[in-house]
Amino acid sequence: MSASVNQNYLKLNESYLFAEIARRIREWQSAHPELSSQLIRMGIGDVTRPLPKTVVDAMVKAAQEMGVAETFRGYGPEQGYDFLKTAIQSYYKKFGVELALDEIFISDGAKSDLGNILDLFDENNTVLVTDPVYPVYVDTNMMSGRKIIYAMSSEENGFLPLPAPEYRADIIYLCSPNNPTGAVYDREGLTKWVRFAQENNAILLFDAAYECFVTGDLPHSIYEIPGARDVAIEFCSFSKKAGFTGTRCGYTIVPDTLKRDGASLNKMWLRRQTTKFNGVSYITQRGAEAVFTESGEREIEENLQYYRDNAAIITETMDRLHIYYTGGKNSPYIWLKCPSDMDSWSFFDKLLNEAYVVGTPGAGFGKSGEKFFRLTAFSTHENTREAMARFEKLVQSMSL
Amino acid sequence: MSASVNQNYLKLNESYLFAEIARRIREWQSAHPELSSQLIRMGIGDVTRPLPKTVVDAMVKAAQEMGVAETFRGYGPEQGYDFLKTAIQSYYKKFGVELALDEIFISDGAKSDLGNILDLFDENNTVLVTDPVYPVYVDTNMMSGRKIIYAMSSEENGFLPLPAPEYRADIIYLCSPNNPTGAVYDREGLTKWVRFAQENNAILLFDAAYECFVTGDLPHSIYEIPGARDVAIEFCSFSKKAGFTGTRCGYTIVPDTLKRDGASLNKMWLRRQTTKFNGVSYITQRGAEAVFTESGEREIEENLQYYRDNAAIITETMDRLHIYYTGGKNSPYIWLKCPSDMDSWSFFDKLLNEAYVVGTPGAGFGKSGEKFFRLTAFSTHENTREAMARFEKLVQSMSL
Repeated sequence: MSASVNQNYLKLNESYLFAEIARRIREWQSAHPELSSQLIRMGIGDVTRPLPKTVVDAMVKAAQEMGVAETFRGYGPEQGYDFLKTAIQSYYKKFGVELALDEIFISDGAKSDLGNILDLFDENNTVLVTDPVYPVYVDTNMMSGRKIIYAMSSEENGFLPLPAPEYRADIIYLCSPNNPTGAVYDREGLTKWVRFAQENNAILLFDAAYECFVTGDLPHSIYEIPGARDVAIEFCSFSKKAGFTGTRCGYTIVPDTLKRDGASLNKMWLRRQTTKFNGVSYITQRGAEAVFTESGEREIEENLQYYRDNAAIITETMDRLHIYYTGGKNSPYIWLKCPSDMDSWSFFDKLLNEAYVVGTPGAGFGKSGEKFFRLTAFSTHENTREAMARFEKLVQSMSL
Repeated sequence: MSASVNQNYLKLNESYLFAEIARRIREWQSAHPELSSQLIRMGIGDVTRPLPKTVVDAMVKAAQEMGVAETFRGYGPEQGYDFLKTAIQSYYKKFGVELALDEIFISDGAKSDLGNILDLFDENNTVLVTDPVYPVYVDTNMMSGRKIIYAMSSEENGFLPLPAPEYRADIIYLCSPNNPTGAVYDREGLTKWVRFAQENNAILLFDAAYECFVTGDLPHSIYEIPGARDVAIEFCSFSKKAGFTGTRCGYTIVPDTLKRDGASLNKMWLRRQTTKFNGVSYITQRGAEAVFTESGEREIEENLQYYRDNAAIITETMDRLHIYYTGGKNSPYIWLKCPSDMDSWSFFDKLLNEAYVVGTPGAGFGKSGEKFFRLTAFSTHENTREAMARFEKLVQSMSL
């Protein structure tokens, strides 16, 4: 006998994107110490606004309850407290989506659930991801040795690839609004994917982590599409909506009607979570509940508007420069075509060296990103304006 | 194509133990509504004392920091903040165990990590568990289709089974102090397991969730045993130590020196956690850090002493009645032999019907538990005393 490791881990690529960015910044800083203070980071994928007061107050109250015998809470339900599930249920009603409480599972974040959900599926299933892609979809499937195929995005399809007969896949990831492209599927696009999943008996894993940025008539939830309850699992999070990236709370919807091989995926997920998870902190769940109160919603909207204003500063710059981009309207991400047909790492270096601005090279998200670049709306107004002024000057100088 | 489910899930047994206990209590209550108020629950596996003031204060402060731009924290390190890892590092020094910070991984609890660690191992590995067993060890391995073998416990080995040549296993679970038996391995016993793992190139998964109840010279950590760094992963939690069952924080130690198939298990776990996990709430981590302050330690010791006093009330009763038991001395669990050679479910019914006291039938934890019964120290002093008075009266009446 001898313990042996999961060999799939040994085949994983190093996740070098952000490490490489950090390395190039360090190198630039040591070459130009006098310029370091002028560096503006527009590659941030993390929120920067503090938690809303209503959320903080709810967590302070909950923490104090935990210190008193009469209101102390021990183990809660692994799938979350009803008070929070009820608040989420009401939120979905705003989009016309009816959910039963037992279809809502509270977790410590969408990233955990996106990885852990794969426990439920056969390792021989083939996975389809859209390229460019959030690397977690790829790595988590490589860890269990699944075959991965790619639906390529491009300027031609507006970075919103649609189903094609050659996509022979059992599990399909969609992220809308998309990370990294910011592109958002409309009802027609999502309906095509739901029909495709129905026809192929596939499962859609729908990542709605950025739904809070959606405005107008675009769908927030896959369940706004008829038939989605029979093909889709939806992942969402308080990270971007309410600034919970360091507070950790998300939720996953597994419809009661979703079955494969005669098994209920809802019951399987319940079994997975009750066996390998012990629920989210009571304090955190009270904070998340407060997100849906009147004052909570108002305060959150102020933060979201702050980021939207940053996004508008960026998209206005792109519009003036006639640079092709997706996102920025219903997303904190702006995915732009590198000027002068540059590749993304060359443009990264140029922007760093000549404008002291950091973004994220599209190549880090897949082949379709090789000539694209991601900027984010999570900086301050001041820095966003200054970065865009420098960006504009740089691009204008390039076309002289 | 067609999405297919992980067939191993379909082979899982229903986890019916606590559901069946609840059913029998409901039945008894509807038959005897006049006695319901006299029911005392001694099967509780959850803490009941509130969080220490020092911990609450730290979490209140941290929640308030999250509401201010200057002190707001977004994504933290997936493997935990250094401030908490440093506190844990110092705690281990008290047992003479030196850990590097990158060997300590903070998580939302030992249950999550005990399940998720299996991602790192080949599915063809054979698993050894001691019987009676915490059901999570069995279910998580059944979910990935691993073969499971059992090391049987009994009065003869004091519910502390030792290695035997016929245990051909790659992964070995040990829980000490044990759930459900409360039995604690001494250095000699653990040394035998470490040697056995070395000889068989096996991995020890050491569950130290109850180490805070250990007194005297018994080991708190597997790393107190020479050689353990090359064979063992240790799981621990703030749940029982500091009442965090509803607050959720734990930690896992993966030594830098632990390698299999040429791969570092530390690096593999780091890759697993950075890919499928996003860290524990900053607020919770500040609460956990406070556990190790002077006032935190003092307040926690008061709570632990409260439970120890309950355990002593129970063990004194067993001693007077000359009932064989394990645990109670370095554990909140007392594992007793059912009086009059009764089977555990029959004794459950008798204790419920005649003394209005609820415990946990040993059969729920495996074959070795069929004539044993678990009582816990997590009730109040008053209820523990009253329950033991009734227990004593019942057992005395049985021997008349």
